[in-house]
Amino acid sequence: MLKFFYAPGTCALASHIALAESGAEYETVRLDFKTEDQRKPDYLAINPKGRVPSLMTEQGPLTETPAILVYIAQRFPAARLAPLDDAFKFARVQEFNSYMSSTVHVAHAHKGRGYRWSDDAAAHESMKKKVGENMLACFRLVEPMLGKGPWVMGGAYSICDAYLFTISGWLEGDGVDLGLLAHVRAHRERMAARPAVQRALAEQTAA
Amino acid sequence: MLKFFYAPGTCALASHIALAESGAEYETVRLDFKTEDQRKPDYLAINPKGRVPSLMTEQGPLTETPAILVYIAQRFPAARLAPLDDAFKFARVQEFNSYMSSTVHVAHAHKGRGYRWSDDAAAHESMKKKVGENMLACFRLVEPMLGKGPWVMGGAYSICDAYLFTISGWLEGDGVDLGLLAHVRAHRERMAARPAVQRALAEQTAA
Repeated sequence: MLKFFYAPGTCALASHIALAESGAEYETVRLDFKTEDQRKPDYLAINPKGRVPSLMTEQGPLTETPAILVYIAQRFPAARLAPLDDAFKFARVQEFNSYMSSTVHVAHAHKGRGYRWSDDAAAHESMKKKVGENMLACFRLVEPMLGKGPWVMGGAYSICDAYLFTISGWLEGDGVDLGLLAHVRAHRERMAARPAVQRALAEQTAA
Repeated sequence: MLKFFYAPGTCALASHIALAESGAEYETVRLDFKTEDQRKPDYLAINPKGRVPSLMTEQGPLTETPAILVYIAQRFPAARLAPLDDAFKFARVQEFNSYMSSTVHVAHAHKGRGYRWSDDAAAHESMKKKVGENMLACFRLVEPMLGKGPWVMGGAYSICDAYLFTISGWLEGDGVDLGLLAHVRAHRERMAARPAVQRALAEQTAA
């Protein structure tokens, strides 16, 4: 059975939602960042990067959200979580997910993880100050993408929606006024009504 | 015909190499960052993010290196640039590319693009100081992946190799001693001997 490693409040929620949407059987393993579970030898054997999420498959472990999302979509095609038979449409899904991981998540990470890129406490403070502005700039690009709706890719729900919901959940904490992003806010409401989203959130808050 | 937008010295080289490997017909458009071509209205209409690379297809533009690389591999399957028929192997390719874009490229970007994440000049300097250490830490994880070789995915050349070659080309400028990374250095030499790599590099230095 698939075994999914996550920590609450992280980008792992995106893959968790995709698993719940997919119809897969899976079990979850919760890591506690406060006790640095992600740096313990057992976990580093699965993911040497010491990050979440990781998905243990029958063939070995997988890491990196964009990779795990597509793996779930390909392995459970009946759930129709990505346009797998159209190279251009699939590339649009990948483009969105790549933007989320390499630009938007990175912009957010400068709030609490500035130590990754500087050893200077004053620099960390200056990075924190800019997070709200950067996240809003990113979401000003995302907002019109949702204009056709109801989903990121238009009429078809996809793994992009799970990823967007996860990262848009950080906006208020980053100091961004969701009132400026009407489509993003409506997207959050649509997502919150989905049983798979409710299941993933419940699994992350239980235990 | 596919139209490829790049700037020399950027991550666009990865997609350029993949195009050259694919057998595709393509034309290239060079952007000059010194004159801020990437922020001019004509280009922003293609890529509102004002970054490279972009690939204009018959169906519209695509951005983000991991998305473009897979699009090329899927559209030109005879070139065998990715394991398209095995969800797990494909996910391993995606995992590698996602690590390159969201962690390794980001680590490098803190050398010259600190202004993205802070408005403080002293913070930019402190970020620059940490780039060599971070790039070496990333490549300490990549080095053993190349142990089986000759390619990132083992025996089969893939889009991952084009991406790795592009980013490993930044190491010396980032202050990393390639002597510490024997497999990475040997990989660079193998790549440099490939006609498609030579073609892409020649196209980027000509004109």
